Amino acid sequence: MKKARCGVLGASGYTGAELVRLLLHHPYAELVALVGERQAGKPIARLFPHLAGSQLPDLIRLDELDTSKLDLLFCALPHGTSQAIIAGLPRSLRIIDLSADFRLRSAEVYAEWYGQEHLAPALNAVYGLTEWYRPALRQAFLVANPGCYPSAVLLALLPLIRSGMIESEDIVIDAKSGISGAGREPKLNSMFCEIGEGVTPYGLGRHRHMPEIEQQLTDFSGKEVKISFTPHLVPVSRGELVTIYVRLHSRVDIDQVRAELQYCYVDSPFVQLTSPEVVPRTQDVRGSNRCLIGVFADRRPGCAILISAIDNLLKGASGQAVQNMNVMLGFEEDCGLTQPPLFP
Amino acid sequence: MKKARCGVLGASGYTGAELVRLLLHHPYAELVALVGERQAGKPIARLFPHLAGSQLPDLIRLDELDTSKLDLLFCALPHGTSQAIIAGLPRSLRIIDLSADFRLRSAEVYAEWYGQEHLAPALNAVYGLTEWYRPALRQAFLVANPGCYPSAVLLALLPLIRSGMIESEDIVIDAKSGISGAGREPKLNSMFCEIGEGVTPYGLGRHRHMPEIEQQLTDFSGKEVKISFTPHLVPVSRGELVTIYVRLHSRVDIDQVRAELQYCYVDSPFVQLTSPEVVPRTQDVRGSNRCLIGVFADRRPGCAILISAIDNLLKGASGQAVQNMNVMLGFEEDCGLTQPPLFP
Amino acid sequence: MKKARCGVLGASGYTGAELVRLLLHHPYAELVALVGERQAGKPIARLFPHLAGSQLPDLIRLDELDTSKLDLLFCALPHGTSQAIIAGLPRSLRIIDLSADFRLRSAEVYAEWYGQEHLAPALNAVYGLTEWYRPALRQAFLVANPGCYPSAVLLALLPLIRSGMIESEDIVIDAKSGISGAGREPKLNSMFCEIGEGVTPYGLGRHRHMPEIEQQLTDFSGKEVKISFTPHLVPVSRGELVTIYVRLHSRVDIDQVRAELQYCYVDSPFVQLTSPEVVPRTQDVRGSNRCLIGVFADRRPGCAILISAIDNLLKGASGQAVQNMNVMLGFEEDCGLTQPPLFP
Amino acid sequence: MKKARCGVLGASGYTGAELVRLLLHHPYAELVALVGERQAGKPIARLFPHLAGSQLPDLIRLDELDTSKLDLLFCALPHGTSQAIIAGLPRSLRIIDLSADFRLRSAEVYAEWYGQEHLAPALNAVYGLTEWYRPALRQAFLVANPGCYPSAVLLALLPLIRSGMIESEDIVIDAKSGISGAGREPKLNSMFCEIGEGVTPYGLGRHRHMPEIEQQLTDFSGKEVKISFTPHLVPVSRGELVTIYVRLHSRVDIDQVRAELQYCYVDSPFVQLTSPEVVPRTQDVRGSNRCLIGVFADRRPGCAILISAIDNLLKGASGQAVQNMNVMLGFEEDCGLTQPPLFP
Repeated sequence: MKKARCGVLGASGYTGAELVRLLLHHPYAELVALVGERQAGKPIARLFPHLAGSQLPDLIRLDELDTSKLDLLFCALPHGTSQAIIAGLPRSLRIIDLSADFRLRSAEVYAEWYGQEHLAPALNAVYGLTEWYRPALRQAFLVANPGCYPSAVLLALLPLIRSGMIESEDIVIDAKSGISGAGREPKLNSMFCEIGEGVTPYGLGRHRHMPEIEQQLTDFSGKEVKISFTPHLVPVSRGELVTIYVRLHSRVDIDQVRAELQYCYVDSPFVQLTSPEVVPRTQDVRGSNRCLIGVFADRRPGCAILISAIDNLLKGASGQAVQNMNVMLGFEEDCGLTQPPLFP
Repeated sequence: MKKARCGVLGASGYTGAELVRLLLHHPYAELVALVGERQAGKPIARLFPHLAGSQLPDLIRLDELDTSKLDLLFCALPHGTSQAIIAGLPRSLRIIDLSADFRLRSAEVYAEWYGQEHLAPALNAVYGLTEWYRPALRQAFLVANPGCYPSAVLLALLPLIRSGMIESEDIVIDAKSGISGAGREPKLNSMFCEIGEGVTPYGLGRHRHMPEIEQQLTDFSGKEVKISFTPHLVPVSRGELVTIYVRLHSRVDIDQVRAELQYCYVDSPFVQLTSPEVVPRTQDVRGSNRCLIGVFADRRPGCAILISAIDNLLKGASGQAVQNMNVMLGFEEDCGLTQPPLFP
Repeated sequence: MKKARCGVLGASGYTGAELVRLLLHHPYAELVALVGERQAGKPIARLFPHLAGSQLPDLIRLDELDTSKLDLLFCALPHGTSQAIIAGLPRSLRIIDLSADFRLRSAEVYAEWYGQEHLAPALNAVYGLTEWYRPALRQAFLVANPGCYPSAVLLALLPLIRSGMIESEDIVIDAKSGISGAGREPKLNSMFCEIGEGVTPYGLGRHRHMPEIEQQLTDFSGKEVKISFTPHLVPVSRGELVTIYVRLHSRVDIDQVRAELQYCYVDSPFVQLTSPEVVPRTQDVRGSNRCLIGVFADRRPGCAILISAIDNLLKGASGQAVQNMNVMLGFEEDCGLTQPPLFP
Repeated sequence: MKKARCGVLGASGYTGAELVRLLLHHPYAELVALVGERQAGKPIARLFPHLAGSQLPDLIRLDELDTSKLDLLFCALPHGTSQAIIAGLPRSLRIIDLSADFRLRSAEVYAEWYGQEHLAPALNAVYGLTEWYRPALRQAFLVANPGCYPSAVLLALLPLIRSGMIESEDIVIDAKSGISGAGREPKLNSMFCEIGEGVTPYGLGRHRHMPEIEQQLTDFSGKEVKISFTPHLVPVSRGELVTIYVRLHSRVDIDQVRAELQYCYVDSPFVQLTSPEVVPRTQDVRGSNRCLIGVFADRRPGCAILISAIDNLLKGASGQAVQNMNVMLGFEEDCGLTQPPLFP
């Protein structure tokens, strides 16, 4: 098969480097351009020594990028900077944007949560939660890769929301995340001494992944959904686990919930329902594109607990981006993503 | 002031060693006996090198213990083994038991959750959540020191349950704990490689701290309470953080919740309500007996989020035990416990 | 190419599970038998959830193993138990032993360091430091896979010892290792609380990898070598870094040392000399079979510092075992081992 | 006793906050001024929530500081900025400078290693390695608090260098340090994801603590000493362990080395020689001002291995500063520093 020529914007961040790592190992992808504005001219191995030893193009500036040489462009830039750049690229180029810029359909909601007017409100993107948008992804030119928390949350909740098994007004999501989700830009809350040996809640009552999750839940439930969502940083580099507390509709039991999830993902290679005695842990997905989902009875009658675990840099970001590329370009969905997790 | 002569049963575990560390620094306590059955004859510094350099008695066997030389005995033995030993000690000896053996009033509930008949059901203990049981503690001969999770949870919830501010049937508690709570006995789930770089939920739908929390909530609410409670291990040695999702009764708002907590603990040196823009973190209580409580609005209307952070070996175990001793023996409540937390 | 039918003895430990993980991803290997005496009858995913989702045989007892169905057997049993078992297997079976049992040629030296008589002193093994024993490995029936420390140390030192560039009587090796090298059997020094947030030297003046390193250095230098070697545990799951202090022979300079290493490994895909301004870190080899070696001037005149970094479970154990299999069976040396490291 | 009125310059860094923590608990010290230029006007608890709950002055600008109200000033500013500020303070004020600015006696050496001319070469400071400079400290007005590595190294080496027990031209120092030594300013190499799960050597062949160590060794040996020194970052917040490889002079044995160290520190409350079967670990000094030193036979004949462990923020910085204050002001040397280490 002819290899897809891929470019990466923002190759100097963690998600950018993870894309490079995955694409290096992808049988049908070829990395032809790495863009890193401030690091242009350097080999990427200067920034990421773990990528040394492979044939990779040096970093270039955006204005040096020849998009005509690309079949697909990954955009791993910070939130707020993607939109203008993507608006300036040719419409014929297939783009997977890992930032939040095109995840929210409503420009008003975007402005409310991201604190700035959207610069390209006319551009529409397919929401890249692969398992739920495959048909649209096949045709998509612009894909908005989901946030890490929404990926873990929605894979567990969408089957139950769509089938009406749970009450939509009483969803509590308690999330724990590794630090790599905060990016490679040095800041206080990413420092070893601040985060190590501790548990750090943040974004109390207001986190930008809330409207993203709610948009999807609202789409699939048919009515406006508001969720409770509280993320916590834990001293882990990679890994994200969400514990979701839901109220089942009457006459729905745990077994039906499990059956619905099983049914939903029967043809999805990366989403695995654990058996009742196995509890998902982030350790068991580290370095893989997997999402493990477990369903458990709550002690409160009529309630259930869902646990969903992903590697935030893979299924929560770059892994899902490659999965989306596979669907967009007609490759096997798990192509280049079949490595088992790295444990311990 | 005459020093209290203290003994520690189970000095070879983490909570035992932490008692020793605290009592070494206590102005009115003197450590006269350390009991460690399997390690009898050794200096405790052989087991815990950080305790070297102090004048401490060697470990002895239980049958070598002369209780007539003691004013107070801390019992830091594993669950299930305390009850028979304590039943065999003189009633005149004041005892603080750090195990779960005397926390549940009902022998039936004990048997259901701990899988064995209680061997000393006639012995009654005062529940040692210091801030809530001071008058009884002053007279107590047997104190059941609370579990680590119940300590963090109840300090946040009791004021709101007692005042009827929250609905008692819709309480969701998501807990994150360091590994030291699991004790020093080597086991798979305490190993660095199993727990490091990961988030590990456990006790799904069934954890022994549930009935302990529920007993107290039921006492203070006047009606039977069932909670949702899910603990998670995170790669931290010390520290415990609980995120509690509650539904406020109508006409109760966040400010009233804060005011109630503030009022409740105005004379309690270790419980601190954080200001609205500060989120409790375990890093900020590490090595201290403090409990930090924060109150935040939930995105779900009429709901609130409480966050409570403690050091599980201090306010969650040995620190609270020393605090209880202070109350029992008429010392200042914070005596020997005034060190600021260790950060980073 | 016909797939090699492989078995793993000791599949319930970390190195066993790592072999399974690597072989699952190997294009020419097929896992046909997993032996785990105490866990026989269980699927391996019960022990290692990260291996769920793959077609793998259940664990069996050793006496259920049909060696006639195997092309190659990996033996990942504890030291001391391999020798008797391997002695009982057919001589025609090709075996890679990851234990220390066949690394030392002298039964006397073995007895001195391992505290027991060797049970199969007549069996000779090829020392599986792949880069240095390729011709012998191609014919080998029994391969003694090197220890983790010896692998990192010897890859850096052998070129310099063989070429006579350094003095053999003044070699100081300071090693830092992750915890997974200690295995999955629960013990005090593998517990999170004991090892976390700390640096733990051990084996002072006496560690079993000393005679193994010395045997090889003696072989290649032509005279008896005694080394200084001090390992330290650091709170890392995977990764091993050795800092080696050597005295150069007169008229040898750093550039010659670099050139010798470069020359030695020009055809070795896994050993990489870093450029002078790059310092090897374990982070940059994690999850890969690489060995990064850096050479630096010491402040002491005429001395140099070598730094060698590996993933102890890969180049230090299971990765090198698969590399040895590749050489033994005529596959490309890096077959199944080409994944870039996982960072962060 | 009248309390000493203390000020802290640079209270917004880790060493500054650690000074505050220690002085809060010091019976004869009173914190009257906290200077933090960029954070002036804020309560320190805004920067360090673990310091909340104590009566502390708000941060002020340097020009707001009234030195006439101070008995002693701690200066915890970054290297290079202390010298000009201290030169501008009254000579009558007693100052303990935790930066490197006054550690090197020679302005040339300073300029060579710190890359700038010294701005106050006329100011002479007493080197604040307490155990070795007590008489001078009692009179000192300006004290240069030692670096963290020099503290750990010199406490182990000075007795042996002074007594001529070891060869001064063959000293190899391999150091492992926690991250807090790098300060609170966000930078790439202090980030959790960069440092976590890894071992990171740095400063190869050139680290600023080299000339500081050499100056002292030269002073006490009477001849010019050059050392080999290689530091490594390990994923630990606090803690520093140095492994020192030395060659004994003929007719000196390990027992004499131990005896010399024992003799040297018999009246020093913080320096403890471990017994031969106990290996110093950073876990056993965490949160205390202790230095644990162990002496072990090397496998190389005539050589020995010294291991020295400290908490880099205590004996390696702020703890030693308080110890120096105690000596300067005539308090007991361990005043305010008697807490046992925090383990686990």
